[in-house]
Amino acid sequence: MTRKSIHRIHVEFGDCDPAQIAFYPNFFRWFDAASRHYFENCGVAPWREYEKTHGIIGTPVVETGARYHRPTSYGDDLEVHTWIEEWREKGFVMKHELRRDGQLLAEGRDVRVFATRHPADPARIRAVPVPQEIRALCDSDPG
Amino acid sequence: MTRKSIHRIHVEFGDCDPAQIAFYPNFFRWFDAASRHYFENCGVAPWREYEKTHGIIGTPVVETGARYHRPTSYGDDLEVHTWIEEWREKGFVMKHELRRDGQLLAEGRDVRVFATRHPADPARIRAVPVPQEIRALCDSDPG
Amino acid sequence: MTRKSIHRIHVEFGDCDPAQIAFYPNFFRWFDAASRHYFENCGVAPWREYEKTHGIIGTPVVETGARYHRPTSYGDDLEVHTWIEEWREKGFVMKHELRRDGQLLAEGRDVRVFATRHPADPARIRAVPVPQEIRALCDSDPG
Amino acid sequence: MTRKSIHRIHVEFGDCDPAQIAFYPNFFRWFDAASRHYFENCGVAPWREYEKTHGIIGTPVVETGARYHRPTSYGDDLEVHTWIEEWREKGFVMKHELRRDGQLLAEGRDVRVFATRHPADPARIRAVPVPQEIRALCDSDPG
Repeated sequence: MTRKSIHRIHVEFGDCDPAQIAFYPNFFRWFDAASRHYFENCGVAPWREYEKTHGIIGTPVVETGARYHRPTSYGDDLEVHTWIEEWREKGFVMKHELRRDGQLLAEGRDVRVFATRHPADPARIRAVPVPQEIRALCDSDPG
Repeated sequence: MTRKSIHRIHVEFGDCDPAQIAFYPNFFRWFDAASRHYFENCGVAPWREYEKTHGIIGTPVVETGARYHRPTSYGDDLEVHTWIEEWREKGFVMKHELRRDGQLLAEGRDVRVFATRHPADPARIRAVPVPQEIRALCDSDPG
Repeated sequence: MTRKSIHRIHVEFGDCDPAQIAFYPNFFRWFDAASRHYFENCGVAPWREYEKTHGIIGTPVVETGARYHRPTSYGDDLEVHTWIEEWREKGFVMKHELRRDGQLLAEGRDVRVFATRHPADPARIRAVPVPQEIRALCDSDPG
Repeated sequence: MTRKSIHRIHVEFGDCDPAQIAFYPNFFRWFDAASRHYFENCGVAPWREYEKTHGIIGTPVVETGARYHRPTSYGDDLEVHTWIEEWREKGFVMKHELRRDGQLLAEGRDVRVFATRHPADPARIRAVPVPQEIRALCDSDPG
């Protein structure tokens, strides 16, 4: 298992729907933010910087899923616990647990790839092998 | 297989992220809209009306997932093809296919339940058995 | 007054907040979409294409405002009526009226500029004079 | 001038648009969150609680506007400084300043009312006079 990071969320009124609970696509917004913070917490430069030096524009999702155990509503303070469950040749499986006071509210799992712009068409993106320096930063023991 | 409905989406600039492609949580926003339009297309009253008569506030998602095959960007006209793949005791599995000019861009699968407000605490929701009249409307052959 | 265009909106459940009405920042999302459709309806290429030939990346807002007269909720079919109220040296004032069955629900007014990327720093943008060919397309009588 | 509160924002990748900058409707999302935190910071119960005791469901916006001075992008840490500029009979004018490292990026001004559900039709809302206990909490000197 890789390093783990915690991303804090405060649920806002505007995140909630007429059923008074957080609208479920927002959980993916939170997981995506957690994914980016994860890499920054591991010491990887923001993608905007990293693109200049390595061409990598980010880690687009190729597959994602979530299970919702308990609803959350505005005013709640949440934590997203994030780590990498598995490295693959051109990507990785990332796990997110959304918790309130320690209680599990939802869990998500993303399959993501490291992507560069397609040389022939910048509107398309292309998966590239996992950069070993990023993997090393995520695998390293911070202790 | 149940009736199928098609929900049309026009991808806007504001739906896209700095990688120039539609931000992936928006696909769940579109699938959720498709899910509601599905029931209305089958002849079910909007949940706001249905709540008054049957107490059902909607079909919250308990599990969802998506696979992304090709990106989409602003200006694209898309179709979400939606149907119910499986009925369960207290819910159903809904399938969504996102298409552009017939080509499959993404697919989603939701496990949803029919929910009412919890009698003891309106902030909580409770799953109820599939209303047979809704099932009949979705199963009926429109031909 | 310039040409006018109409952009159609269907209010979704996820656009609404716990007060059961459309969350007001979404009106700006709709006005922004209406702004882009306005130029396309007048015959201007999408900004992504236009950037390649003229460097213009879009019409960022420098000032905006809205007045809300009546709420709207999910299921409503709305129209945004959009036109350019005033041309300025480096920008323009755009007016939006949000209507349901002809009734005015909200009105918005944007001050926008035509922008290019700053040559020294692509993270910054720079206002440029109104392209006369765009102005001609918006001013022309379609009749 | 009333009490002032500061609400912290971290700009996420998904808050940004293809021009690489935060999509401007999100500023209203942040101002709305700042508005709610303002009242809680002053000691007013969350609207969900306050509705039970006083019928007030929140402070819907009847008019809003923003001026954008400098763009912001993902990774930025921002502060929204919020206070009430003016009390009116059934509402108030709220001012927001969005700052990064002290520098003013944008400013917003909302006209809001205190609202209850319309007794004859819960889908409609009705403005009520400013509750004097809320005004006292906002006006009080915390020192």
